[in-house]
Amino acid sequence: MIAQSLDKQLPHGVADLFFNDAARKRAVERALADTFARWGYSEIIPPMFEYYESLAAEAGPQLREEIYRFFDRDGRTLALRADFTIPTARIVGTKLFDRAMPLRFFYIGSVFRYKEPQAGVRREFTQAGIELIGANTADADAEAIALAMTALSATGLNDFLFTLSNAAFLQATLCDLALSDADDTALRDAIRRKNATALAQRLAALNLDTTRTRALAQLPTLWGNADVLDRAICINDDARAAVERLRDVVARLAQFGLADFVTLDLAENRGMAYYTGILFEGFVRGLGFAVASGGRYDHLIAHFGHDLPAVGFAIGVERVMMLQRTRASIAPDVIAQICDARVFDARAGGQAVEVDVSNRDDAALREYARVRGAREIWWRDGRIESVIASEAKQSPNRKLETPALACGASVALSAKNASSQ
Amino acid sequence: MIAQSLDKQLPHGVADLFFNDAARKRAVERALADTFARWGYSEIIPPMFEYYESLAAEAGPQLREEIYRFFDRDGRTLALRADFTIPTARIVGTKLFDRAMPLRFFYIGSVFRYKEPQAGVRREFTQAGIELIGANTADADAEAIALAMTALSATGLNDFLFTLSNAAFLQATLCDLALSDADDTALRDAIRRKNATALAQRLAALNLDTTRTRALAQLPTLWGNADVLDRAICINDDARAAVERLRDVVARLAQFGLADFVTLDLAENRGMAYYTGILFEGFVRGLGFAVASGGRYDHLIAHFGHDLPAVGFAIGVERVMMLQRTRASIAPDVIAQICDARVFDARAGGQAVEVDVSNRDDAALREYARVRGAREIWWRDGRIESVIASEAKQSPNRKLETPALACGASVALSAKNASSQ
Repeated sequence: MIAQSLDKQLPHGVADLFFNDAARKRAVERALADTFARWGYSEIIPPMFEYYESLAAEAGPQLREEIYRFFDRDGRTLALRADFTIPTARIVGTKLFDRAMPLRFFYIGSVFRYKEPQAGVRREFTQAGIELIGANTADADAEAIALAMTALSATGLNDFLFTLSNAAFLQATLCDLALSDADDTALRDAIRRKNATALAQRLAALNLDTTRTRALAQLPTLWGNADVLDRAICINDDARAAVERLRDVVARLAQFGLADFVTLDLAENRGMAYYTGILFEGFVRGLGFAVASGGRYDHLIAHFGHDLPAVGFAIGVERVMMLQRTRASIAPDVIAQICDARVFDARAGGQAVEVDVSNRDDAALREYARVRGAREIWWRDGRIESVIASEAKQSPNRKLETPALACGASVALSAKNASSQ
Repeated sequence: MIAQSLDKQLPHGVADLFFNDAARKRAVERALADTFARWGYSEIIPPMFEYYESLAAEAGPQLREEIYRFFDRDGRTLALRADFTIPTARIVGTKLFDRAMPLRFFYIGSVFRYKEPQAGVRREFTQAGIELIGANTADADAEAIALAMTALSATGLNDFLFTLSNAAFLQATLCDLALSDADDTALRDAIRRKNATALAQRLAALNLDTTRTRALAQLPTLWGNADVLDRAICINDDARAAVERLRDVVARLAQFGLADFVTLDLAENRGMAYYTGILFEGFVRGLGFAVASGGRYDHLIAHFGHDLPAVGFAIGVERVMMLQRTRASIAPDVIAQICDARVFDARAGGQAVEVDVSNRDDAALREYARVRGAREIWWRDGRIESVIASEAKQSPNRKLETPALACGASVALSAKNASSQ
């Protein structure tokens, strides 16, 4: 009787969040929002659904396939947002194209992508990120990367490494080739996997000129420190410009004290179909996939009417939550037997005070306070009693436990701090 | 060519939010979340979509009709959440029924309801509210109402009035009547509209006993101060209990110093189909519809397997935003010509610092700083320059402008403060 019990089950890929997990999510989002704001970014909130035509624009075949679609009652096709970059491009391209540039936006919210059912795969997940629109400079690229690092640091993650590439380099090296889609995909795939044998076979079959063959064959070796940029074989001015842009970005990150957190990998060519320049992914020890990823997309906004360069990144909020070592606590400071003026005053002063509304007797209230992890019980007659922490509740100090919830402290981590750790 | 331009339009009932509007939304949500947390509530985050069967459970015909549905790729019917109460009931009824009671949850997020297109109607809107589960007491009812008031106060709204009713009173007065749906609806409608003539005609046609007729006929007059509770004709114990519950709740609100913010209206019987006890709606001067509404629903969670009493409310976040007189500002504190150590330090200290990534010359940067409303320009050579506010930017002090963004201050408003204003 599956149909009968559907009302008590959840579909694959979505989850209920409550208690400490929900508190941790809010703390992460708050730390990220505060960090973005301190870098001059203001929030943008596109709708949760809009016309499929908007969201599918420039989405690339894979993302397009993953978009959740449904019909409006007038027969038009709506879709749940699958990222924030495309809706932001629509808003800027149609409404904000004539503002003083650059525009700096951040976003935090759910996105939806249909994925084949398998363990751990999410179909609703949370992205937090930024778009820096209207400046195509190394300064803009470096700001995006430095902000991604600072944002991770604000959530308590400091053990990260960012790989940096430039989509324009491979694009320049492949220019004028008019490869078939199949050849193009196979070539990029062999390069990304650093599979020198497969790549050599592909290149032999394509019968390209010697310089170009050498430039492509070399790509799987172009990873590591900045000397990669000296070794890269550039077959034209665009390839040289792509390498110089990377050199400028790396130099700025070094000025920021962030050089230790960057590694180059020119073989990397993953990412959204719309990327045209630098590409980066942030990894944290203990997680096999990127916790942040982004890049430059200089022609996406043009689809919506106005050609504006842009760079941005998204952080996977659930991935940050998986990696965090801090716990968020939902324990109140106080359990009060009655709701009197003290209670209102304490709440106004910032304490979390829970009032008994179940008419518990003293023994039951004492036990409840212990279960809830409260620090104190405030009795009806004015007495204040400290609660002895049970084993289940090791950390009575709520403020210490949740650094990211404490105003100010959580976002005080700067990239400079991060670099010194 | 409507089809061609769909990608640049938005469907009816959804909106893009950015700049000050988005900042204000985040400030309101933060003030509400902090207030709920100080009353001992922790967050619950149900998925944005789940099985239609879950969301339609106990939803009542109107809400059920408004639910957005779509098909999963395996053919099951999914739906966007249309409120938070039903998903919370599912979570508690299936996963948390054996925890120490009461459970206190708050939620903030988008809900989706199909509404006929008309000006100002939203199909995606934001609800923030609480559910207090596992306690059927006047203390619990009073806490919910007092928290709704405190929450509005935390967003800067103090000029509110809550109407209070009890669904159980009308239910008790109508007990054993076995009215047809049409008669029941017409009767409730006449009562709610306080249409004495229509009500008298209905009652005459129904030919009820004299006491019951008098009790029902009296309902449109039962609004105002607590003397309403003395005048109410109670035809049975359940009706008397409903009146006594109201009396107890009003007494507690008076103890909290909130008596001035409550008015009774026993004719009110609007609301969700699942309400079984107190019902309340909060109105703010300047808005013709409720900004907060809630009530007691003691049998909803039973649908999901465990019978637990509960009371809750939802605040309409967009409605709060319409009413607020404060402005949120997205102006940075500083525009910096280069991204040096000062900039990182200032951000770590909590300032919003925007760096020029467009290589503007001095004159252009000065103009840009003015447009952005920054307080200071930090030049490359270390000079600090105050920005003369343009007419467009009257309020240079970002902190004063956005009380709800300042940590601590925004949520320091207690119900006591509210009652003294």
